[in-house]
Amino acid sequence: MSDPRSLDFRSDNVAGVPPEILAALAAANQGTDSSYGDDAITRRLEAQLADLFEHDVVVFPVATGSAANALALANVVPGWGSILCHREAHIATDECGAPEFYSSGAKLVVLDGTHGKLQASTIDRHLARDIRGVHHVQPMAVSISQSTEAGTCYRPDEIAAIGEICRRHNLKFHMDGARFANAQATLGCTPAEATWRAGIDILSLGLTKNGAMAAEAVVFFDTTLAKNFDYRRKRGGHLFSKMRFVSAQLEAQLTAGLWLRLAEHANRMAGLIAAAIGKIPGVKLLHPVQANELFILMPDVAIAALEAAGHRFYRWEAAEGPCVRLVTAFNTKEDDVEAFIQALTTANFEAE
Amino acid sequence: MSDPRSLDFRSDNVAGVPPEILAALAAANQGTDSSYGDDAITRRLEAQLADLFEHDVVVFPVATGSAANALALANVVPGWGSILCHREAHIATDECGAPEFYSSGAKLVVLDGTHGKLQASTIDRHLARDIRGVHHVQPMAVSISQSTEAGTCYRPDEIAAIGEICRRHNLKFHMDGARFANAQATLGCTPAEATWRAGIDILSLGLTKNGAMAAEAVVFFDTTLAKNFDYRRKRGGHLFSKMRFVSAQLEAQLTAGLWLRLAEHANRMAGLIAAAIGKIPGVKLLHPVQANELFILMPDVAIAALEAAGHRFYRWEAAEGPCVRLVTAFNTKEDDVEAFIQALTTANFEAE
Amino acid sequence: MSDPRSLDFRSDNVAGVPPEILAALAAANQGTDSSYGDDAITRRLEAQLADLFEHDVVVFPVATGSAANALALANVVPGWGSILCHREAHIATDECGAPEFYSSGAKLVVLDGTHGKLQASTIDRHLARDIRGVHHVQPMAVSISQSTEAGTCYRPDEIAAIGEICRRHNLKFHMDGARFANAQATLGCTPAEATWRAGIDILSLGLTKNGAMAAEAVVFFDTTLAKNFDYRRKRGGHLFSKMRFVSAQLEAQLTAGLWLRLAEHANRMAGLIAAAIGKIPGVKLLHPVQANELFILMPDVAIAALEAAGHRFYRWEAAEGPCVRLVTAFNTKEDDVEAFIQALTTANFEAE
Amino acid sequence: MSDPRSLDFRSDNVAGVPPEILAALAAANQGTDSSYGDDAITRRLEAQLADLFEHDVVVFPVATGSAANALALANVVPGWGSILCHREAHIATDECGAPEFYSSGAKLVVLDGTHGKLQASTIDRHLARDIRGVHHVQPMAVSISQSTEAGTCYRPDEIAAIGEICRRHNLKFHMDGARFANAQATLGCTPAEATWRAGIDILSLGLTKNGAMAAEAVVFFDTTLAKNFDYRRKRGGHLFSKMRFVSAQLEAQLTAGLWLRLAEHANRMAGLIAAAIGKIPGVKLLHPVQANELFILMPDVAIAALEAAGHRFYRWEAAEGPCVRLVTAFNTKEDDVEAFIQALTTANFEAE
Repeated sequence: MSDPRSLDFRSDNVAGVPPEILAALAAANQGTDSSYGDDAITRRLEAQLADLFEHDVVVFPVATGSAANALALANVVPGWGSILCHREAHIATDECGAPEFYSSGAKLVVLDGTHGKLQASTIDRHLARDIRGVHHVQPMAVSISQSTEAGTCYRPDEIAAIGEICRRHNLKFHMDGARFANAQATLGCTPAEATWRAGIDILSLGLTKNGAMAAEAVVFFDTTLAKNFDYRRKRGGHLFSKMRFVSAQLEAQLTAGLWLRLAEHANRMAGLIAAAIGKIPGVKLLHPVQANELFILMPDVAIAALEAAGHRFYRWEAAEGPCVRLVTAFNTKEDDVEAFIQALTTANFEAE
Repeated sequence: MSDPRSLDFRSDNVAGVPPEILAALAAANQGTDSSYGDDAITRRLEAQLADLFEHDVVVFPVATGSAANALALANVVPGWGSILCHREAHIATDECGAPEFYSSGAKLVVLDGTHGKLQASTIDRHLARDIRGVHHVQPMAVSISQSTEAGTCYRPDEIAAIGEICRRHNLKFHMDGARFANAQATLGCTPAEATWRAGIDILSLGLTKNGAMAAEAVVFFDTTLAKNFDYRRKRGGHLFSKMRFVSAQLEAQLTAGLWLRLAEHANRMAGLIAAAIGKIPGVKLLHPVQANELFILMPDVAIAALEAAGHRFYRWEAAEGPCVRLVTAFNTKEDDVEAFIQALTTANFEAE
Repeated sequence: MSDPRSLDFRSDNVAGVPPEILAALAAANQGTDSSYGDDAITRRLEAQLADLFEHDVVVFPVATGSAANALALANVVPGWGSILCHREAHIATDECGAPEFYSSGAKLVVLDGTHGKLQASTIDRHLARDIRGVHHVQPMAVSISQSTEAGTCYRPDEIAAIGEICRRHNLKFHMDGARFANAQATLGCTPAEATWRAGIDILSLGLTKNGAMAAEAVVFFDTTLAKNFDYRRKRGGHLFSKMRFVSAQLEAQLTAGLWLRLAEHANRMAGLIAAAIGKIPGVKLLHPVQANELFILMPDVAIAALEAAGHRFYRWEAAEGPCVRLVTAFNTKEDDVEAFIQALTTANFEAE
Repeated sequence: MSDPRSLDFRSDNVAGVPPEILAALAAANQGTDSSYGDDAITRRLEAQLADLFEHDVVVFPVATGSAANALALANVVPGWGSILCHREAHIATDECGAPEFYSSGAKLVVLDGTHGKLQASTIDRHLARDIRGVHHVQPMAVSISQSTEAGTCYRPDEIAAIGEICRRHNLKFHMDGARFANAQATLGCTPAEATWRAGIDILSLGLTKNGAMAAEAVVFFDTTLAKNFDYRRKRGGHLFSKMRFVSAQLEAQLTAGLWLRLAEHANRMAGLIAAAIGKIPGVKLLHPVQANELFILMPDVAIAALEAAGHRFYRWEAAEGPCVRLVTAFNTKEDDVEAFIQALTTANFEAE
C-alpha cells in the first residue's frame, strides 16, 4: 500500500538519508577531534578516494553542490576567463551566479546539445571561432554534468573526446557530478574510466542527492590545480569547524559500495517508469532515461489527473508540449512507482 | 577517572554534539519534504525565534559562522563601506577575509579595546575623525562579538551605548554571536535585552560551538535589512538542499532551553578553573572569565608540564608573557576540569 | 591626392582629434582649478547636457567607453542580476568582462536579432520564459547599442517598444552610446526622442570615437539611479584628478553642435562608399549602412587586392562569406573614400 | 605682482600642464595610428623606460594613480592576501578601497611609522607575529609611497632594507610613485638605485601630479609579475582606445629630463617656504620637507589670516595642533611663494 506522503517525485533532494548516514554521524560523535578538517575521518578520505579512483587525488569536503562547483571552477578560471558548458547546465541556470561570484565575474558560455549533452564537435567549433586577445574573455575551462540535467549520461569515450579538445586548447576539464553515482550505476565502468582517464581534471563529487544530508567532495585529479583551494573555501565560509560530520557522510557512502547501491536503486525505479511509458499511448519520454530523472510529455489533463491523485512532481518547460519531470531517489518505494504507473495509465486513458 | 581523550580544551568546536541533536536529525529524517528551506521545520524557525527574541525577525539558517557573518555584513555594507570592529574580532582575524570577499572589498577598520571589548567612546572618537567624501570608504556598520574573543561579555547597557552611536551615525549594528549562548548564560538578561533593545540590527546566532553539528542562524531584527539576503546566500553556495537537517539542529537547541543549559554547563566548567587560578601562585588570568574561554598567564615550564600530562590547549600570544587559551564546552567533564586544576597546581608548584 | 597614411578604415578610434579639442584643452589649461571634478568646466557640464536632452540629468565624465558601460550597469544590477543584450553587444563581446567585474559577477544574457538590433518581441519572449526564484539570476536591465555593432540605428519607436517592456518588468534601460552621435546624425530626431522619451534610464554618451581624445559621459535621466555612482567611479580608478581636461573635451564637442557635425561627416563618408557598393557587381553590404560602419561581403581576392593597394580595414566573420568591416571617422577624407571606391571597383573587376 | 588666481597651494593636481605636454598631444595628433596601445608612441615607451631605469621593464600606461596602484597590487595579491603599508598610505586612505576592489577583497594592513615612512623593523616585527594558516589572510606584498604622504623621501638604503625583508618573506614590493619625480629630484640618485636595485618589483610611476594631464605608468621590474595585467587593465576599463595620447604625455615628460626639471622646480618652491618657516616664530614644520609638500603647524588665527589674504591650502589633522598642508607644483610662481611667506610672517606676527 502506498503512503500518500511518499508519492513525491519532485527531486532526489526531497528525500532524507539512509540509516547508514545516521549511524555514521553517531559514530563520528565520539570524544573530541581536531576541527576544520584536521580530524581523523577527513584525513582518511583522501586515501579512500584515491583507492576508488585509482589515482592520486587532493580532496576537499564541502556541503553543497553549488559550493563545490563554484569553488572548483574559480580555482582554475580567473575573472577574464570563460567556462564552456551546456545551455541547461546547473552552473549556468540554477546556482544564481555562484560561479561568477566566486571567480570575480568569469563568463559562462552556454552551448547547445541534444539531450543535455555537450558534443566535442560543438566545443571545437566554438573554439575555432572564438577570438583571442585582450578585448575578450579567454576560454579556460569546460564543465559537463554527469549525469546531465536531462537525465542522460556521457559515455567514457564521449568524455574523452571533449577531454582531448581541452588538452589541445589548454582548457581545464570539470565534471559537475551532482548525480555522479547515478551515472556510474548506469555506465558500469570504473570511476577512473569516466573521469581522469577521459581527461577530467576536477570532479565535484555530489553525494547529497544520493542520500547524504549535506556532503560533497571536490576531487582534484590534477593535484597541481588544488593550490589555494583551501583559502578560497575558508574565505567562502565553507570550511566547517566540525568537519568530521561532513566527512563521515562521505566515508559512509563510499564504504562497501553504499553509494552505488543507493544510486542503483534510484535508477531502477526510474527504469520501471520508463519501461511502462513505452506501453502507454499518448505519453512519451523527452529524453532517454539513463539515470534517475524522467522527462515525460503528456497531455495537460493527464498531468492534472496525476496531481489530483496526490502525485508530486514538477511541470517542465519543453518545446514539444506539456511535460513533467520526475526524479527517483535512493529510497523511492516500488509501491509508489507502481502507483504512479497505474495512475498514469488511468489518467491517460481518461485524457483520450 | 579522567579519560585521556577528553583532556581537550583546544576549542569548543573539538566537541561533538549532545544526544538531542542526533535525535533531532533522526526525527527530521521522516518522509520527504520540500528542499531549499521550504520544509516544515525551517518554516517553524522564524516563529520560534520571534518568540525567543520577543520581536519580529527574518531568519536564514546557514551552516558556518563565517558564512553567517560575511553574508550578514555584505547585505548592509557595499564595497565602498567600512565595518568598525575590535582589533581581535573573529571577522577581522580568523575568517581569511570572508567579509571582504562577500562585500566586494569593504574595509574592516579595527579599533582597540581592553579585554576584547569595543567601547562606545572609541567608536565615537573614530567617527569624529573619519573623513567623509568620495575618496574614502564610508563607515556603514559596527560589529561586536558576544561573547568576545577574550571570553568577556558586553552588558546590555554597553551594547546600547554603541547602539546609540550607530543610530546617530546611521550605521548598522551587527553582533557576531558565535558564543551568544555563553554570553546569555552569564548575563541572565533576556535575549531581547542584549540584542534589539540595545540597538542590534542583525545577529549571527551561532549554535555550532554550543553543540550543533553545523547550524547557525542569521537573525534580522530590522527586517528591512533582510532584502536580497536569499540571493546572496544561494550565490555563496550556502542554501542547503536538505535544509531541514540544518534547521532541525537549530530547533532542537532552541527547544526547552537546551541552548542555555548547554552554555551554562560550559561556563560553569570555565568558572571552576577560573576560581582555582585565583588560588595558584604564579598563574594569572589575562581577562575576566565571563563565558567559556580562559586566557591564563603561566610560566613556560608550567605550560610544558601541562602538555606533558596530556592536556590540550592552544598557546596564545600575549604581551604580558607566556599564555594559554582554554575553551570549555557543553560536554566538558568536571573530572577533566579537576584533573586540569590538579595538574596546573602541581605544574606551577614545580615551576617555582 | 590620397595620403597613404590615411587609407585607414580600421576603426574610428585610429583617428586623432579635431582642432577644437586641442583648443579646448589649451583653454582649460589656465590657472589652477579644483581637482576631482569640482572644477568650473565639469560643473557646467550638467546644465549643458540638461539643455541638450531637455531633461534633468546627473552626469559623470569618464574616459573610456568600457568604464562608462560597466560603471553604469553595475550601479543598477547587482551580482544576482542579469542584463539582456544583443549577442554582438560590445559589453558582451569586447570588454573582457568589464560589466561582470564591476557588478560582482552579474550575468549578460545574449539574445539574437538581425542587423545588430534587439527586438522588443525577443525580449518579451525571453522574459516570459525566464524563471524567477532564488536559484536564478534575476533580469534587471536591458542594454542596447546606438548605433549598433552592425552599423545600424534603432528608431525612437523601436527603442520605445523595448522601453515599454522594461517598465512592465521593472528593468532598467541602458543605452551604450559609443556612437550615439552617429545615430543622432542619421535619425535627425532630438536627443530626447531617442533616449528618455523612449524609456532610456541611463546613457553612456561616448564621444571618443567621435573625435575626443578620451571623453565619455554617463548620463542618468532617472537621477535616482545615480546614487553611489561616485563611489564606484572612484573605487574603479576612474575619478580623474585633473578632471577639467576630460570635461573640456565633452564641452567642446557639445558646443555649437560640433558633435553632430563630426558625426555627420563620418556618416556621409560611409554613405558614399555604401552608395558605390550598390553599383559594383560581386560586392554586397551585410547590413544597411545607417551610421559610420560598413560590413562588405566581397571575394577573398578582392580583399587581398585592396590590402595590397594600402587600404586598411578589418576582416570580419560572417556566415555569408568573406567580409570586411570599414569604419569612417570625423576626419575621413573624401579623397580616401574615392580611392577606396576606385580600388574596390578595380579589385572586384579583376576578381571576376 | 602675484595673481590672486594662483595663490593656490591645495594640491599639485590643481595645476594644469606645461607647454611641452600640449605640444606632445598636438604632435601625437598626426594621421591615424593603431588603437589600444598598439601605436608607435606606446611601443617606444618600454625602451625609453628601460633606458631610464637601466633594466628590462614591462610597462602599462594608465590614466590615474588609483588605477595604477590597484591594478598593480591586484596582479600580485589575491583576495586572501594582505598588503602591508603605512597607516597614511594613499592606497589605504584615499582610494575608496580601489585595491580591495581590484583584488577581490585583499586586506590592507596598516602599520605606523614616523614622518610617513615605514621602517623595515616594523615590517619585520609584524611578520614575526603574523599567523600563517588558512584562517588568516596571507602577507603577500609591501607597498610604500615615494615621496610619502608626509612629504618625506625614502633613501635607497631604507628601501633596500625593506626590500630585503620582502625577499626573505617572499613578498612583492610595490612603490606608489605618485610623486616619484619629486623624490628623485631630492635624492639625486639614479632611478635604478631607488627602485629595482633596492628591491622594488613594481612601480606606479605617476606623472599627472608632475604636470601631465592624466598619465601614469605601471612599470614591472620583475617582468614575470606582469602576466595577465593586460586583461585586468582592459576589464577595469583602463585600456584607452586612443592610447597614443596618454603615452605621448609620458614620453614628453621623460624626454630630455623634463620630468626632473618640473619636479625640481616644485621642490625648490617648497624649500623656499620651508626655509622661511624656520625664521618665523610660532610656526613649525610637522615633517621634514623633502619633496613638494609642507605640513605647517600654526595658530588658528594665522590660518584664518592667510585664508583671508586669498591663500588656498587644506587644513590638516594633526595631533600636535592646528595644521595646514601646502603643495607646490611644477608651475608654482616664486612671486606667489614670496607672497605666502610674507602673509605668513604678517599673519603670525598679528597672531602673537
